[in-house]
Order: sequence, then C-alpha cells, then structure tokens
Amino acid sequence: MRSSGRPADAMRNVRFERRYIKHAEGSVLVSFGDTRVLCNASVMDRVPPWLVQGKSGWVHAEYAMLPRATHQRSPRESLRGQVGGRTHEIQRLIARSLRAAVDLRTLGKRQIVVDCDVLQADGGTRTAAITGGFLALRDAVDTLLADGTLSRDPVRHQVASVSAGIVDGEAVLDLDYDEDSSADVDMNFVLVEDGRFVEVQGTGEATPFSQEQMDAMRTLAEQGARRLFDAQRAALEEEPVG
Amino acid sequence: MRSSGRPADAMRNVRFERRYIKHAEGSVLVSFGDTRVLCNASVMDRVPPWLVQGKSGWVHAEYAMLPRATHQRSPRESLRGQVGGRTHEIQRLIARSLRAAVDLRTLGKRQIVVDCDVLQADGGTRTAAITGGFLALRDAVDTLLADGTLSRDPVRHQVASVSAGIVDGEAVLDLDYDEDSSADVDMNFVLVEDGRFVEVQGTGEATPFSQEQMDAMRTLAEQGARRLFDAQRAALEEEPVG
Amino acid sequence: MRSSGRPADAMRNVRFERRYIKHAEGSVLVSFGDTRVLCNASVMDRVPPWLVQGKSGWVHAEYAMLPRATHQRSPRESLRGQVGGRTHEIQRLIARSLRAAVDLRTLGKRQIVVDCDVLQADGGTRTAAITGGFLALRDAVDTLLADGTLSRDPVRHQVASVSAGIVDGEAVLDLDYDEDSSADVDMNFVLVEDGRFVEVQGTGEATPFSQEQMDAMRTLAEQGARRLFDAQRAALEEEPVG
Amino acid sequence: MRSSGRPADAMRNVRFERRYIKHAEGSVLVSFGDTRVLCNASVMDRVPPWLVQGKSGWVHAEYAMLPRATHQRSPRESLRGQVGGRTHEIQRLIARSLRAAVDLRTLGKRQIVVDCDVLQADGGTRTAAITGGFLALRDAVDTLLADGTLSRDPVRHQVASVSAGIVDGEAVLDLDYDEDSSADVDMNFVLVEDGRFVEVQGTGEATPFSQEQMDAMRTLAEQGARRLFDAQRAALEEEPVG
Amino acid sequence: MRSSGRPADAMRNVRFERRYIKHAEGSVLVSFGDTRVLCNASVMDRVPPWLVQGKSGWVHAEYAMLPRATHQRSPRESLRGQVGGRTHEIQRLIARSLRAAVDLRTLGKRQIVVDCDVLQADGGTRTAAITGGFLALRDAVDTLLADGTLSRDPVRHQVASVSAGIVDGEAVLDLDYDEDSSADVDMNFVLVEDGRFVEVQGTGEATPFSQEQMDAMRTLAEQGARRLFDAQRAALEEEPVG
Amino acid sequence: MRSSGRPADAMRNVRFERRYIKHAEGSVLVSFGDTRVLCNASVMDRVPPWLVQGKSGWVHAEYAMLPRATHQRSPRESLRGQVGGRTHEIQRLIARSLRAAVDLRTLGKRQIVVDCDVLQADGGTRTAAITGGFLALRDAVDTLLADGTLSRDPVRHQVASVSAGIVDGEAVLDLDYDEDSSADVDMNFVLVEDGRFVEVQGTGEATPFSQEQMDAMRTLAEQGARRLFDAQRAALEEEPVG
Repeated sequence: MRSSGRPADAMRNVRFERRYIKHAEGSVLVSFGDTRVLCNASVMDRVPPWLVQGKSGWVHAEYAMLPRATHQRSPRESLRGQVGGRTHEIQRLIARSLRAAVDLRTLGKRQIVVDCDVLQADGGTRTAAITGGFLALRDAVDTLLADGTLSRDPVRHQVASVSAGIVDGEAVLDLDYDEDSSADVDMNFVLVEDGRFVEVQGTGEATPFSQEQMDAMRTLAEQGARRLFDAQRAALEEEPVG
Repeated sequence: MRSSGRPADAMRNVRFERRYIKHAEGSVLVSFGDTRVLCNASVMDRVPPWLVQGKSGWVHAEYAMLPRATHQRSPRESLRGQVGGRTHEIQRLIARSLRAAVDLRTLGKRQIVVDCDVLQADGGTRTAAITGGFLALRDAVDTLLADGTLSRDPVRHQVASVSAGIVDGEAVLDLDYDEDSSADVDMNFVLVEDGRFVEVQGTGEATPFSQEQMDAMRTLAEQGARRLFDAQRAALEEEPVG
Repeated sequence: MRSSGRPADAMRNVRFERRYIKHAEGSVLVSFGDTRVLCNASVMDRVPPWLVQGKSGWVHAEYAMLPRATHQRSPRESLRGQVGGRTHEIQRLIARSLRAAVDLRTLGKRQIVVDCDVLQADGGTRTAAITGGFLALRDAVDTLLADGTLSRDPVRHQVASVSAGIVDGEAVLDLDYDEDSSADVDMNFVLVEDGRFVEVQGTGEATPFSQEQMDAMRTLAEQGARRLFDAQRAALEEEPVG
Repeated sequence: MRSSGRPADAMRNVRFERRYIKHAEGSVLVSFGDTRVLCNASVMDRVPPWLVQGKSGWVHAEYAMLPRATHQRSPRESLRGQVGGRTHEIQRLIARSLRAAVDLRTLGKRQIVVDCDVLQADGGTRTAAITGGFLALRDAVDTLLADGTLSRDPVRHQVASVSAGIVDGEAVLDLDYDEDSSADVDMNFVLVEDGRFVEVQGTGEATPFSQEQMDAMRTLAEQGARRLFDAQRAALEEEPVG
Repeated sequence: MRSSGRPADAMRNVRFERRYIKHAEGSVLVSFGDTRVLCNASVMDRVPPWLVQGKSGWVHAEYAMLPRATHQRSPRESLRGQVGGRTHEIQRLIARSLRAAVDLRTLGKRQIVVDCDVLQADGGTRTAAITGGFLALRDAVDTLLADGTLSRDPVRHQVASVSAGIVDGEAVLDLDYDEDSSADVDMNFVLVEDGRFVEVQGTGEATPFSQEQMDAMRTLAEQGARRLFDAQRAALEEEPVG
Repeated sequence: MRSSGRPADAMRNVRFERRYIKHAEGSVLVSFGDTRVLCNASVMDRVPPWLVQGKSGWVHAEYAMLPRATHQRSPRESLRGQVGGRTHEIQRLIARSLRAAVDLRTLGKRQIVVDCDVLQADGGTRTAAITGGFLALRDAVDTLLADGTLSRDPVRHQVASVSAGIVDGEAVLDLDYDEDSSADVDMNFVLVEDGRFVEVQGTGEATPFSQEQMDAMRTLAEQGARRLFDAQRAALEEEPVG
C-alpha cells in the first residue's frame, strides 16, 4: 500500500475550474489532489524576434511558484534577480509540450503565452501544469475561432502529462510530495491522445533503473494519460466556448 | 450614478476565504468585487540582519501580480531581473500597515512575512491586500498562541484599508479599475479599529485637490473602514483557530 | 522647544543655487538646512515608449543619494544591481509632483528628466528635491521658450513640498533628521500655488494619528508651502533666463 | 545512409585528452567528432549551505559554451547578467548524472565541481560533457586517494552518456548538429556500467514518438554506452593517477 | 596656442574645498577647471573578506558620474543593473593610486573607502579624483590620528595625478574635454612627492606614439605634479584637522 | 637568475595554433609558456548602435577566464550576474589595441568581435590575448579579402603585446605568474611593427618606480615585441588564407 493510500495505478483526484480569471483568453485552475496550478493562456499579437520574418506563430510557457506554495517559504525569483535552474527546466518542458499540441503555421503570426502559477504544491506541479495548460490553450484557441480571428483549428493534438516512479521497489502512478521525496526514480511523461509520447524524462540519481522498471512506469503512465484525456474532454463539454 | 452602479458611499462585495493554502500559517483569499488577492502569512525563525542583536521581531510584506491578473499580460519581474517601482511602492505600504498592527517586542525574535499575490486585478489591489493580509497575519499569530509559542497576543490593532477618490467631481468610495482610470484624485487610507490612521496617501497628478475634497474622501473612508472591520470580525468568528 | 531649536511652525533656512552645473538646461542646488540636493533638469528628444504614438511629452524624475550623504556610508545601488524600494518610492513621488506642474500636451513630444542627487542628507530630502526640482524644471522650460522651441509656456502650476510631523505629541514643520527619527508621524505634502494638494502622504507606523493631528499638520504645511513659493519666486527673479 | 555517412548504430570518433589543464585536479578534453568539451574537475573544501550541518559531500556541474563554439556567435551570459534556460537545463542534467557516480557519504564533507566548457559544438555537447566529465571526476577522486585524503573510493558507478534520435523515420545513434537539426525525435541517455539508466530524456516536439521508436533508440543507446565505457577504461589505463 | 588658450605646460585652475560634506571623515570638492569631483573618504570597521584573517587594512575607491555631469545625459548604472567598463577601469586606477599612499599594516584592520562622484565633467575626471581623493584620505587619516585611534601615521606618500596628451602633434598638459576629444594620444600619470610613478597609462588608439612623444608627455606630467603637490600642501595648511 | 630560470630579457616559448575552431572566421590558440588563450574572431554584419548612421566598422573584444584556468577555481561571472572590474579593464585594453590595427573606414560597415578565452593562466594573459588576437583578426580579414567582401586590406598595423616588470630590483621581460606575484612593478606594452606604442600601462602600487626603471622596462619590451612580430609573421606564412 502506498503512503497515500492509493493503489499503484491510481491517480489523485483531478479537477479543472475553467474561466477562473476573467481577463485571460483561457484560464484554468487545475488540481491534482492538493497540487493546485492556475494556468492562464494569453493571446498576444507579437511573435518572438526569430519569427518576425516568417509566417508561423509560437506557443510559450512560463512557470512559477508562489512563495508559500511549499512547506517552507521560498524567496521570490524577482528579488534574487535571476530565474532559477529548476524553474527554467520545468517551463521549457511545459512549453515544448504545449507547442506539440499546435500547428504553428495554422496558428498564424501570433503568440499564445501560457502562465502556470503554482498556488499550492504537493508533487507533480509540472504534470498538472501541462494538463491544465492544454485546456487553457484550447479555450484561448476556441476564443479565436469563435470571434473569427482563426478559421481553421490549429490544435492538432490533445496533450496531457502524468508522472510515475519507483517507490519501495514498486512502480506507482502520479506521485504526491511525500512519495516523490522517497522515490528512487521519478519519471514524467507527456502524451498525445493516440498514446504517442511528446516528452519522456526519467531520473534515478540515487538509484539507477532498469529497462523493466522503465517499461512498468511507462505502462502506468499510458493508463493515467487515458484518464486525463477523458477528464479534459469532460471539462470541455460542460460549457463550450462561443 | 457611478459607472459601477454603486452609490458614492458603497463598497464592493467583500469576501474572505480563510485557510486557502494548507502550508501557510495564515492564508486568506480576499475579494473586493472582482479584485482577488491571495494573502499568505509565513512565520519564520530568522529576523532581518538589523534586528539580529535585539529582541524585537519583524513583519514584512511582499506584493506581486500574476502576469495575467490584468487586461494586458505584463512580463514577470523575475525575468526582467528587477522589481519595479510600483511593486516596491505598494509592498512598502502594505508592510508598514501590517507592522502597525503588531507589537514587535511581544512578537519576539521571529518574522512574519505576508505575501500578497494578486490573482485578478480590478482596482484597489493594495487596499484588498492590506485588509486580507491583516486576517492572514491574525491567523498566523493565533497559530502561535494556540501551540504555546506565544503566551501574549502581539496584535495591538485591527487594520483595514480602503480607497476613495474624486470621479467627475464627486467623492466616491472603493474605486474599481474603470473608476480609477478616470479619477481625478485617488486616495488610499489605512485605519485602525478606533478610527485613527496608519497611512494616508493621496495623489492628484492631473488635477490637484482641495482641503474640502480631502475631507470628503476621508469621511467616506472612515465609513468604509468600519464595514471592513465588521467583515473581518465576522470572518474570524466563523471558525476560530485552535 | 524642538530639538532643532526652531518654533513648531518654523522652516529651516532654504537656499537655491541656480545654474550649478553648466551642461544641464536647468540646474539647482537646493538646501533645506543641512540637506543639500542637486537637481538637474535635462531636455531630451525621446519620449518613453508608451507615448511614441501620441503628441504628449513627459516629465520623469530620478532620485539617488551619494554613498556618504548619510551618517553611515551606504553601498551604491549600481553595485547591488537593483534600485532599492525606498529610492523607487521617493522618485515616483517626485515625478508625479513635477508632472503636476506641466501641461504635457503643450510641452510637446519631448521629455524633461529631473535628476535629484542628494549630496548631504539631514531629513526632508524628498521635499527639498521636489521644491528644487521645480526650479530646475522651470529653468529648463524657460530655455526652450527663450530659444523658440516652445512658443507657449507648458508650466501650469508652481509646485513645492514640505513635511510636517508629530514629535512628542506636537505638530511641527519641516523635520530634520533627528526629529524625523523620533517622530510618531511623518507626513509629506506637495502643493500648488493656490493651496491645493498634488500629493499627501502620511505614515504613523508606530503610532496611528487622529483626524485632528492630520489637520494640524496640514495647516503647518500650508504655511510652509507659502514661504517656499515666495522663496522660489525670489530665486527666479534674481536672474531671469534668456 | 545518414548525412554523416555513418551507419545507424555508429558513433563518431571519441577521444579523451587527460591532464589538459595543469591546475585542475581532473582535466579532460573530450571529443565526440567535432564536438569538443573541456571538462575540469575541482576539489573544493566548502560544501553548499544545505549540507553544512551534515556529513555528506556534493558533486556540482556547470556548463557553458564559448561564444564562437557555434556557427553564429552567441552573446556571453555574463554580459546578459542571466544564465539562460538551455544552460540551466543542461547543467542540471550533467550534475545529476555525475552525482549518480559517487557515494556522497564516502566522498566526505567536500565538493567536486565539474566545469564543462564547450570549445566547439557539433551536436551532443551534453552527452560529451557527461562522458568526459566522468573521467575528470574519476581523476580528481584518484588524486584524493593518491594523496591519502580519501582512504575508500567514493566512485560507485562508471557513467557515460549518448544520444539517439529518429531521423527520416529511422533510429540512429549519436547525432551530429546537422542530424540533430532535422531529427523528429532527440533522446539523451545516461547509463551506468551495468546497463541501468540514470537519466532518460526524449523530446518529440514536432513529431510525437511511439513505444517502438523509444525502444529502438534505447537499444542503440545501450550499444553506444558499452563502447563509451570501453573507451573510458582504455583512457584511464594509459596513465594511471598516482 | 591650445584651444583652451593655455600654454602647452599650463594646468587649469585647481581648487580644493575641504569639509564639503559634514558626515564624511574626509570630504573634498576638487576642481580642475570646470571638472568638479566630490571626494568623500569614509572610515569603516570592516575589511574585505580576503583580509579578515590578517592584520592589514584596505583602501578602496569608487567612481561615478551624476547623469548630467556630461553634455548629454547618460543613464544611471543602478538602473542598468551593471557597472560599466569605463567606470570599472577608472575606479580601479583610483583605488590602486590611493593605496600606494598608505601603509596598509599601519592603517590597521580597517578600511577607508574614497567615493569620487563627478558633479561636472570637463575632461580629466580621473586625475582630479585621485588628486582630491588623496586630500580626503589625508583628512580621514588625520581624524583617526586626532582622536587617538591611530598613533602612527600610515600615510607614506603624497599622491597626485595629471594627464598629458599629444594634440595637433604637440605635447600638452592637463587636457580639457575639447582637447581630449581631438587628442591623438592621452596619457595619465600618478606620481608620489619624490617624482616616482605609481601609475602610467597611455593610449594612442588612433595614432601610435613614439618614445620621444612619451618622454615629452612625461616631462610635462612631472612639472604638473609638482604644482599639484604644492596646491595640496597649501590646502592642508589652511585649516589643520584636530 | 629569475625564478623561471630565464635571463632578464628572455621571453617564454610562444606558439600559435591557427584554425583551432572550425566555425570562427579567425581562430588562434596562443601560448606564452603555460598561459593558453583561445582567440576567436567573428565577422558580424551589425555595427554597434552609435555607428549605425555612419560608414565605419568596429572592432570589439571580450575577455574571460574559464573557472579553473587559475590555481583556485573562481566563480563564473554569468552566475554572479555582473562582469567584474578586472575583466572589464582587460577587455577594454585588448579592444583598443586591436582597433589600432585596423582602419575602420576601410573595414566598412561591419564588426569584428575577438573573443579571448583563457584556458590556462600563468601570467600575461592580456599580452597573449592581444598578440594571438591580432592573428585571429588578421585571418578573419583575410577571409573577407579572399571571398571578395573586401577589396582593400583594412589592416594598417601589426600589433603585439608583452609585459615587463621590476622583480627583486631588476627589470625582466614577460613575467609568469610566480614572478608577477612578487614583482614591485608590472608594466604592459602594446606596440606596432615600427616600434611605436599603442598602449603603455604600468603599476607600482606597492613600490613606485623611477624614470630609469620605466626606461629599462620599455627597452626590454621593444626587444620582446620584435620577436613577437617575427613569430606572428612566421605563423602567417605557414599556411596562408585563401
């Protein structure tokens, strides 16, 4: 039995609160158990400098934690004057994952920025951010389709993310903070709706992992992702944009 | 009639959600109408360098806006590597106001940091932050009293804040974003429960204001503050700490 | 009797040295007693980014202290790589106050930057900076009128600033450093020549203040401002620009 | 046939120049084809702040590229005043990989910092850095063993890294810059001598990848890693430390 | 005839205003013609980190220009968040020069920081800063001798600095801004009272210079330095410290 | 006899490895004994902002040390977020020296950036960087001549640099790190092929130096520079560009 009381292949309770912020074109408060991330998608006219010449658009993501999202208060990166390495690593992962969802040509010469701000952290903030960020992105694109800015849907994939790990020698799904702290291996998966992978990142710094363990974690992740895709679809059907 | 549909002396709907974040010793999501600020109070063992020699504690506050709290997305201060002037100005006001609530000697050699993060901005974020921040501070102190860390209550004042302004020549209370944008004068008041003032800040950059106008705004603020003190007390009575 | 030996309503000796620096369009070394601030107004062709589309000009101000302007040497903000909160707060106040003096449309598409550098600090540096900064701004505008760049005077108000406070229970005018350190309340006023207010900022962090105290400080400030307006006019008459 | 002229499972020519810099305790210039990375391991007395209380040591890594390591000159991060996201992401990967090689308790209360500076980049700089960095770390530890500072060897694993990718639908090993630019999927593997994994990171931003493709890349990586382990051992045998 | 109307070997009018700022242990406003630099020497208890173990003291210098010290306003380095290269180069020169004046052992475990802030720039700011900075340093040390903190004088050399250059093919002394702008060669000399050199820095970026030209500039500098030493001594004799 | 075993007028072994990096238009690994500096010259289309209006080009240089180029590892400037004073001072010297080699008008509206990265430091890194940097610049210009971008050679001077110093009272040439640490005077010379000087920089912080000592060092430097000019020419003749 896991410290969380869940079976090895059980995810935490997943919830999406859409339209959380009134200003953003897409705004989703996503919860994976006690992990709560506010994902706001903003449509911006300007593309990054390296795309100014071309016809493609861009999807960018930023990630941050409120100072007291964690057990101990951590200082703001704005005061340190530097964005930290962990933040960079996570927001690059989120951005690549969300870009995989979109045909940047069809999006046209505009940018969608997805801000993922962690209000409360209990493990799996990056997987929650990607899964909720996709919904915010979806809502933002639907706004563009509804008001006629876009005539074709640039979203080509549904994207969701979940973690798996090896805890006490066993592969388990969707680790919370306590499990994550004692895990030998931590692996994050980002998938599209047909089961293929956008990102796979696994780390066994303290204890290297075998092929068999990797495969066991992958199988769990595939199951978890299917449930996340269902939950995303259910949330979208509740109240369509437009 | 105001653009908000409110009478001149009416405040927006004020709500407090206590215990919003599980990690913080005090955590309050405060709403002044559509303005929503998450106020988390953290108790920390370490005092700032200039107090290391003495016996007093400290109350510090930090303020920030999520990038999409506003109509247009604004870039993160962590990426610019500098905290902006407006942020500095506001968080210094919040910190002074909350320090006025506390006897720093009785607090003892510890620090309470109150983080005020604006999730959605619609005018009056600093007054909401002070009013909600006081509740978070109160809850954090009650935690210390409940677990025996403190034997005497260091909170000596109840603190609340409200804005008033001159819009179309008339003094009005608690301006929202639209009113604020068209106001000739904007004045923020911080009061304690007996009606005295901790802070008064008024600006008439485009149109200087007279003594009479200042007095009219002050009278409105005194009325508004009384309602805020009642609302704070009601929120605290709902579910006492300990 | 005040520690400074002055009656409650007496200001320190105020002096203006115009044309202190030869390069600046306006340059005034202002002294409020031992507080000495060098105010240099620079006329610049470029307006800030948000005005590039329009027809208005801008007035900007920056404030800094030389490292040894104070009793203890303080490190340079350039070395820390961050402008501090106190600096931001003060220079934003100065800038708003000086903008109140000018009709930005009539100024035309140019910017006047007023640099206020404190050579020696003995309390009231921000009020001295605003009062001296107005003269530097006035001289810079007169240069533009004299050389035909401007045909109409964009200066619509004379601006001056003075502090008042509650020291040992009594309202006093124009606090020096010693008084400021022991004051219960510190309040800064910025006025225009007809007695109206541009800015009012009062703080009673340690001891909240009553309506009556606020009114007493305001009355002192109105008297002080009248003397400052006279002194400014006398300085300007000594040697007109052009 | 690959654009590089190599068969799918062929690595580039791998070379190690040990003792490249005379000051460093371990210094290895590693080449994967035209990619050249200078890896210097420094033994330092001080551990990071969070280890000051304990008995463990630490292994840290930093990564940077000389401005003209690439086709286009890129500006120095020291001038921008910020370490970029890509740099952070890569150096965190290197550091975790090298820490996996060492028992931090046995290392004792000291830190080994491995600096990986790319002199010339032609794809695979992070895998070259890890593979060469391990040798530099090994040499630095051997110095400590040789001079009696350490009595037991803290190195518990041999670590090497190699990339694989999907280019034109086919899985290939050790991509150079041209292949990397046109690859659908890019996957980096870090292994220990018994074939287990320390890190797996795969990205298919433009084209998601299937389980079968992941397995094909993994098989190639396992073959490549075996050759790297052999090459590392050969290099160490040439001229033992001490 | 020089553009300044001076003969080739004539210096500008040199003036020293001692005790300019009341807080600093040494405070000198130095003028070389229209170049005006405020030099404040601060005695500090703390030595830099690398001297904490030893018994020596330290002399440090910092240099800055007020934004409008020059013809065009230049942005503050505090806002750019970086001290510029020119500033670094100059303040390192000043610091080395002033350290040459002092026996750091005799100074004891304390630091003297000499801040050189340029109020008005008209060429030769670094030579004025060194020459005036020496007087500020001298006054600060005399304060320590007068109050018994020091029993032996740590000042072992009188230090002064002057520039020479090649303008229109002729060697001239003490260049002002106009001459400096059109000079082929610019050379700064720092000397001690017996005619020896502490620093020599010459640059002929546009036109290399010969041995003979170097010797001619050196001869002028020796003459100029003698006059500066006299002027420093005269200033000190006017009103001795203690 | 010198600690290095060399006679007073002997230079260390000087070597140039041209075409060290394949991407750079000019790339030279220069060694002065154990001092090794990689000098890469990059041709860039864009000129600095202040030249955008004109017809001239520019030569810029940057200098840095790898963290473990020295006995003790020094932290990266990118992490500190500030380029240090020593770095600034040195790279400004290198840039001025290399600009002296080039007619910027003939170079045309382009920029050559010479990056000098110290792989191993043993004294004299700046003189090695200038001497090797000139070769890299020469190779980059020859590339432009060979491909027809330039029709006239903008290189007007051959530039080399060498240090001299006073060690144990005797003038010696080309100091290594040990000699530099114990030298009374350290002087760097930059010359052109006809024996004239571009830069002269001498420092006697601990012990001022006389005219005679300066002349002795200058004589040594002139001899050393002649040998460096010969070595540069020999290196260029080995394998001409184009």
